[in-house]
Amino acid sequence: MSFAGQTVDILLINAHLLTMDAKLTQYPRGFIAIKGNEIVGLGPQAQAKQFSADKTLDLDGDLVLPGFINTHTHVSMTLFRSLGDDVNDRLHSYIFPLEKEFVSREMVYLGAELGNLEMLKGGVTTFADMYYFEDEVAKAVDQIGLRAVLGQTVIKYPQADAKNATEGIAYAESFIKKYLHHPRITPAFAPHAPYTNSTEDLQKIAKLALFYNVPVLTHLAESKKEQAEIAQRSDGLSPIAYLDKIGVLNNNLIGAHVILANENDITLLKTHHVGVAHNISANIKSAKGVAPIVEMLKQGVDVGLGTDGPMSGNTISLIDELNQVAKIHKLWNKDRSVMAAVDVIKMATIGGAKVLNLDDKVGSLEIGKLADIIVFDTKSPNMTPIYNPYSVLVYSAYATDVKHSIVDGQLLMENRKALTVDEHDVIKRANEFSEKVKASLISQGKSIL
Amino acid sequence: MSFAGQTVDILLINAHLLTMDAKLTQYPRGFIAIKGNEIVGLGPQAQAKQFSADKTLDLDGDLVLPGFINTHTHVSMTLFRSLGDDVNDRLHSYIFPLEKEFVSREMVYLGAELGNLEMLKGGVTTFADMYYFEDEVAKAVDQIGLRAVLGQTVIKYPQADAKNATEGIAYAESFIKKYLHHPRITPAFAPHAPYTNSTEDLQKIAKLALFYNVPVLTHLAESKKEQAEIAQRSDGLSPIAYLDKIGVLNNNLIGAHVILANENDITLLKTHHVGVAHNISANIKSAKGVAPIVEMLKQGVDVGLGTDGPMSGNTISLIDELNQVAKIHKLWNKDRSVMAAVDVIKMATIGGAKVLNLDDKVGSLEIGKLADIIVFDTKSPNMTPIYNPYSVLVYSAYATDVKHSIVDGQLLMENRKALTVDEHDVIKRANEFSEKVKASLISQGKSIL
Ligand SMILES: [Zn+2]
Ligand SMILES: [Zn+2]
Repeated sequence: MSFAGQTVDILLINAHLLTMDAKLTQYPRGFIAIKGNEIVGLGPQAQAKQFSADKTLDLDGDLVLPGFINTHTHVSMTLFRSLGDDVNDRLHSYIFPLEKEFVSREMVYLGAELGNLEMLKGGVTTFADMYYFEDEVAKAVDQIGLRAVLGQTVIKYPQADAKNATEGIAYAESFIKKYLHHPRITPAFAPHAPYTNSTEDLQKIAKLALFYNVPVLTHLAESKKEQAEIAQRSDGLSPIAYLDKIGVLNNNLIGAHVILANENDITLLKTHHVGVAHNISANIKSAKGVAPIVEMLKQGVDVGLGTDGPMSGNTISLIDELNQVAKIHKLWNKDRSVMAAVDVIKMATIGGAKVLNLDDKVGSLEIGKLADIIVFDTKSPNMTPIYNPYSVLVYSAYATDVKHSIVDGQLLMENRKALTVDEHDVIKRANEFSEKVKASLISQGKSIL
Repeated sequence: MSFAGQTVDILLINAHLLTMDAKLTQYPRGFIAIKGNEIVGLGPQAQAKQFSADKTLDLDGDLVLPGFINTHTHVSMTLFRSLGDDVNDRLHSYIFPLEKEFVSREMVYLGAELGNLEMLKGGVTTFADMYYFEDEVAKAVDQIGLRAVLGQTVIKYPQADAKNATEGIAYAESFIKKYLHHPRITPAFAPHAPYTNSTEDLQKIAKLALFYNVPVLTHLAESKKEQAEIAQRSDGLSPIAYLDKIGVLNNNLIGAHVILANENDITLLKTHHVGVAHNISANIKSAKGVAPIVEMLKQGVDVGLGTDGPMSGNTISLIDELNQVAKIHKLWNKDRSVMAAVDVIKMATIGGAKVLNLDDKVGSLEIGKLADIIVFDTKSPNMTPIYNPYSVLVYSAYATDVKHSIVDGQLLMENRKALTVDEHDVIKRANEFSEKVKASLISQGKSIL
């Protein structure tokens, strides 16, 4: 409490604080003091008077919690959202042709601008991304002020930014060197999936990631196709057992989806401290199944929530996942008491921070942690009444109930107005881009489905 | 087009119209003219000039569609929302004791005020309700201006408004007589469920409903407990086959849930024109299962969407059901092409109208139909871009993207401001009520879970 009695930068008062610390401490009337990018004070409202501030927000009982952490997305694909949603072969009939025609530096930047704006307005303060030209995503993140783990894709097929995995690794390494010391951006490798990279490349990436101490983001145990191809490559191993055998399972690895995980796989994830990004919305929409998250949590695996890309999920504000996570695991386990609201909020905050190895910095409201904080307006009918605040957030809240957002001590949204980007201009340019996509689809005689 | 060249009351121009008529006609730039409570003109924007209006809303490309129809809820329970969500025996540990202590005329009215406000702000223009003191719900509906089918509960156990089913039937009959000719309210019988009423009472209700030509709302084929009790009562029949045997399956009947329906049951529903209210959110949260809606739609059963009560769903704005309906049936059927977005929007509009036997009046935008119309703001990041408007509505839109709402020709919400009720005052009184509930729970030593 070395700053007590001092002037701070931002003071949030009369807040209902859900700290998400290890004891799940709540202050029904509390305050938070922020100086620079750090939380320097928090507690019951009566203790707020030791602080004065340049900016004070009186929250009148609104809910305050650590910002949501989206552990898996492809933000730039927001520009393609609402195409091919209900089409069985949409990967080959929509996504791949669209990416071949439209992925460019400019498209990646514009898509990231649009998606970042949506996440900011929906309470996401940190996200993990995998795409091409990831340095363009980094520029957009730098501008809007969010925190992110950005993984440059490595895949054996030719893409807009690399002809093969070797070029992809080189691109990733140069990106990582450039952003290694950015205050809010953690650069990362993003091998697309085990079956779309060779064993040698996966091992090379794992080694480089340990050298730079950066994360490795990958799709993992997502589909039967992947399962079959890896089994063929490895004498019948599961994707997770295969990664163990080739020596790349470790604390730097973050696997997205992890639907097809058996008991042994879950033990491997736990033993090697692999993080899991759970994307319920995308997984059920694609009819791929329900990841055994209840089992993973029981075994102590680190699990965070993700939205997957906006052609999958389709929104990338994490709050849209919450009620689906709670409800679908109840359905799947035939038990309404599993996946209680508080456990879902844990995954969305501190759980995600653990997955991304950022839990020493963010994921809970504690003195000394970085100030990544969101405020939910409790004055709308869907937020009324509030008996259990976790239930209200999981089962009733909309992304649009997020009123203010602070990342790294900077107020990025106040009263729903984005402060660091021109929202109207971003949406206008995104719509202009979508007109080009529509025109191209029509000229090819394709339905806009 | 008898009103052409005439002054109308409201003109919506530059709208992207999704009419939901039999041909699913869309006008990407269109207009609607409203006179009194009726749609008197609609079509491409170029034809709008034949009308002048007292009130013109230039929608700048925003999406316009028939208002959503919530075919099953218990609106007054909104006052208890967020209590006991993840508790296995919550019916006996929370709901029944709370209702015993708190259900009163005043509570039913206040709960309806709060829930009606939430539905209005989320684009619901018609809803079907089942509760006690349903005349109080009617008063709140009359005031806010929504359309509703209101069912007075009949149940064999003592409740606040009736000691037994006989008293419940008498209460319902008197309520029905009073509201039979209301322009927006259809009064109805609401036998709670087959197993909580006697065969004789179910038959008596069916007969009275035919006499007054009013709907019968009931919970149907919802739980294993119901299935077992009805099987015992009827020599092994399913709940639906039992209702058929006792002669109460007909076009007036609307069954909520209908999870446990086999092929024969579905045929019975179709043959007797029984409407089905599908409540996916409540059904999965309670781990009860997934109703065979894909099969029902194939067989031509009328299916609408419902939210169930706010202790179940938990929001009562229908739009929160849409993406869950689309995605969970994909998961359940292991096929991402089933339950396409357009089919979900059909159920939410014209489908619901058919279930409630209101499809000659509402459910689609057509000349001569009543003007129940909602406008979605397309200028938010989650609504950008729009390739397939049905996809955007189902997979990306929030209740808060509803910008204007018109019911029976009256503008009830403009630019998100409710015009017929004092939103702030309703929320304030609801919060005061919740403080009494909290105090009571605490005094009984009960956790607020
Ligand atoms: Zn992905
Ligand atoms: Zn119900």
